[in-house]
Parts: sequence; structure tokens; C-alpha cells
Amino acid sequence: MADASHNAPVVILNEPQLAENIGAVGRVMANFGLSELRLVRPRDGWPQERAWASASGADWPLNGARVFASVSEAIADLKLVYATTARPRELQLPVITPRAAAGDLAAAAARGDRVGLLFGGERAGLETADIALCSAVVTIPIDPRFRSLNLAQSVAINAYEWRMTVAADAPPPAFRPGDPPADQAALLGFYEHLERELDAAGFFHPPEKTPNMTQNLRSALGRARFTDQEVRTLRGVITALSRGRGKVLEKIARRKAEDEA
Amino acid sequence: MADASHNAPVVILNEPQLAENIGAVGRVMANFGLSELRLVRPRDGWPQERAWASASGADWPLNGARVFASVSEAIADLKLVYATTARPRELQLPVITPRAAAGDLAAAAARGDRVGLLFGGERAGLETADIALCSAVVTIPIDPRFRSLNLAQSVAINAYEWRMTVAADAPPPAFRPGDPPADQAALLGFYEHLERELDAAGFFHPPEKTPNMTQNLRSALGRARFTDQEVRTLRGVITALSRGRGKVLEKIARRKAEDEA
Repeated sequence: MADASHNAPVVILNEPQLAENIGAVGRVMANFGLSELRLVRPRDGWPQERAWASASGADWPLNGARVFASVSEAIADLKLVYATTARPRELQLPVITPRAAAGDLAAAAARGDRVGLLFGGERAGLETADIALCSAVVTIPIDPRFRSLNLAQSVAINAYEWRMTVAADAPPPAFRPGDPPADQAALLGFYEHLERELDAAGFFHPPEKTPNMTQNLRSALGRARFTDQEVRTLRGVITALSRGRGKVLEKIARRKAEDEA
Repeated sequence: MADASHNAPVVILNEPQLAENIGAVGRVMANFGLSELRLVRPRDGWPQERAWASASGADWPLNGARVFASVSEAIADLKLVYATTARPRELQLPVITPRAAAGDLAAAAARGDRVGLLFGGERAGLETADIALCSAVVTIPIDPRFRSLNLAQSVAINAYEWRMTVAADAPPPAFRPGDPPADQAALLGFYEHLERELDAAGFFHPPEKTPNMTQNLRSALGRARFTDQEVRTLRGVITALSRGRGKVLEKIARRKAEDEA
């Protein structure tokens, strides 16, 4: 799927109304590696400064945006186009999730096909005639109690699923950054240190419960999968907490020696 | 998983700046079946009319929003909280995708645990100290060439993954059987107890490193997701390790009194 990321879906907005929303769409496209934006009859014309203002620096999808007079012209060069809409339609088209759509689009893109996602404007959504030009309907699983999804959010979720699909091969940025867990020998040294000090402090009572208590402590602490550095720090914690006792014992011994001298 | 959908994650926004963004967050929460919103130190105070204006009728998350003075107070009653941030941090916390996070949260919610997602404000994001209170970092797979993701988009993608998880009929991902984790208030009490005793023992040196050292300890121990019983046991451990010191001090005082008598 390595090629698919260089062949990301074109985003087509049908009759978008607010320039701010077009800018927000440009921004989420940039967030998820999409770059080609097409506008069908934008209500207030194009370009509009407010779009750039709301794109927060994601200028390139807006700079390259092209305007079309109809959906059919806007998608003419594309091989596979899915229509994103929440409304049930009477068309006999497959209705799929954004996740399934991303899989289909990525497979086509990996073959070299140009692909696209069509979105309706804020008010009117998509006409049945325009949906009929597409190969499937993509429906985001909205809560039926509140269906009004913002245009840029709809693009964001589809773009996110695209990126999840094509970026899945590549190692994600930082899965559990940092150090591996300490080995069992280091862990055991830590547990024994802790248990020695607890025993000295009279923690284990009654004594016959000691094995059970140590097991419970070990399994609770073990779940954290401490790193070597963390084990060293925690041994420092045990020493610090119990050290006072040692120091005071030394002091008693010293004092006793002085008394006896 | 029928129950999980009635126990959706609480959304916590740390220091949100723009009322419009808070409203947009309320709207996407409603889109995906989330309803409980908490605000930590909203910059311009709360309530603000512009939030309702940008929620497009999704009033209930805003109507019920509660304001808190700190992240720790805002998450005190929650059992599992994940921090959403794009930035790599030095904490040793698991870094997971929104999809994996939704699986974890749904499994906990299905058990009856209250769960939450913590989001940083538009400018500052999240402080390391606040992330350290969470059990994992959720990172959206953003294109590294354009990382600036709008706050409401970040909530939308996580809320969408939540809904995809609980709305699907798929069995929940495997989770650790047994007792649920302690809530954040119990954990915080444990951390503060430990830190108090460590401070008394002179563990934190040089003093300027204290915040960093406490964060590292909290994030290391937090990964274990201790149960209530384990937290009680560990507080017993701290008391036992530091008590010796007190007992011996008492002994010294008693001895001194005897010497002087």
C-alpha cells in the first residue's frame, strides 16, 4: 500500500456555503495527508480570504483548489468516487462505513486509480442525481438523536480512516517511546529489597500470610512493567523511606556507646 | 457492550480558549453519543453564549458542563483516563491510537467504570504533570508535515472511534478480569502520601527536580492501574517503611526522658 499514500483521495465539496468550513476542510486534509480539493459551485465564489484564515496555515489544498460547475465535471477523471451522506436514499447503492470506504479507496489507489470522496454542502447535502454518479454511499455512524455533523468533521473522519489504512504499514510515530521493561532479575532484586525492608518493619503479620502478601505486591507492581531506570528509582524510594530508621538506629547505637563509655 | 454506550467517556478540556471550540466539541460529542463535558480553567470563563451558538443545537453537553480548577479535580471520580496529545513526551506511558483507546475505554465502561478522555487547550496542550495522571497517551496518526489539529476534530475522531466500538456488535477486547482500578482520587491520595514521606526523608534533591521526579514516579506507578485494595496495601507499605523511623524516634524520646528522669 506504499503507493496509495501518494494517490490520496480527491475531496469534492458540492455547493459549500461557508468559507470558514472550506478552510477547515483544507486544514483536516493537510492533517491526514490529503491535498487535492475541488469545489462545485461554492455559494460565495472562490477564492475567499476567510477560507485561508480558518485553515491555520494549511494553505496548499486551498491554493490548488479548482472550481467546477457540476459534480459530474468535478469527478470526470476519477475512477472510484464514494458519496458521503448521512441520509438514507432510495438508490440501490451499497452503504458502507468510512473504514470500509478507506479500504476500498486505498486498494484502488494502490492500483494507480485516481479516487475521490464527495461531500454535500452544509444545507442541502447531496442530490440523488449526484449520489447516483458514485459507487457507494459512505455513512458515518452518527447517533440518530443528533445527526447534524459539521462538514469539516465529516471530511476529518473519512480522511482519518484513509490515513489509518495507508499508514498502517509504516511504523506509527512513537508506540511506547523510550526504554524497554527491566528484566526479571532486576525486578526480583527490587521485590526482594522491598520485602526485606517490609519484613524489618514488621509489615508481614501474621507471618503465615507472608507468601500471599508478597505475591499480591509483586503482581500489582509487576503490571507496571518498570524500566531499569524506574527500578533504580524505586529502590531509591525504598532506601529513602527506610533509611531514616537506619540512621536513627545508628544514632541509638552511637548514643548507647557514649553512655557506656 | 450494550451497557458501555450508557457509560460513555467524559470529555475533559484543559484550559480551552475559544468558546466556539467548546461549542464545536459539544456538537461532536452529541454526534457520537457522548454527553458529559468538563472544563478545567476555561480562559474566558463559563458559561459563554458563543459556545451555544456554535453547537448547532447540541445544547445538552454544554448545559451540563462543569468547571474545575485543576485536571486532578476534574478526573478525581474516573477510573480510567487517557490523555490525547500529539506531542512525544518523556513520560513512560503507552502511546496508543484512538482505536485502541476506544477498545480499552469501552471494556472498562462495560464493567461499569467511569472513564474519560483528556484534551489540551488550543495553545498550550497538556502539561506533563497532567499527562502523568493518565494511564496512556492517545495519539492521532497525523501527517507529520501538518500537525496542527483543531481541538474539536481531535474530540471528533476519538468520539467516532468510541461509537464505532460500542455500536459494533463485536465482542469487547480482552480485558483484565478481576477488580476495577481505583479512582483517580484514591491514586492521588496514594501519590501524595508517598511524596510526603519521600520529602520528609530527603529524597527530592536537588529540590528543583522535585516536579520531574514526582511526575516520573506517578507515571511509572500509574501504569499498573492499582485496584482500591492494592492502593490500601501500598499505603500500608509506605507507612510501614517510614513508621520504623517514627517508632525509633519515639524510643529515643522515651529513652532520653528516662535518662533525664
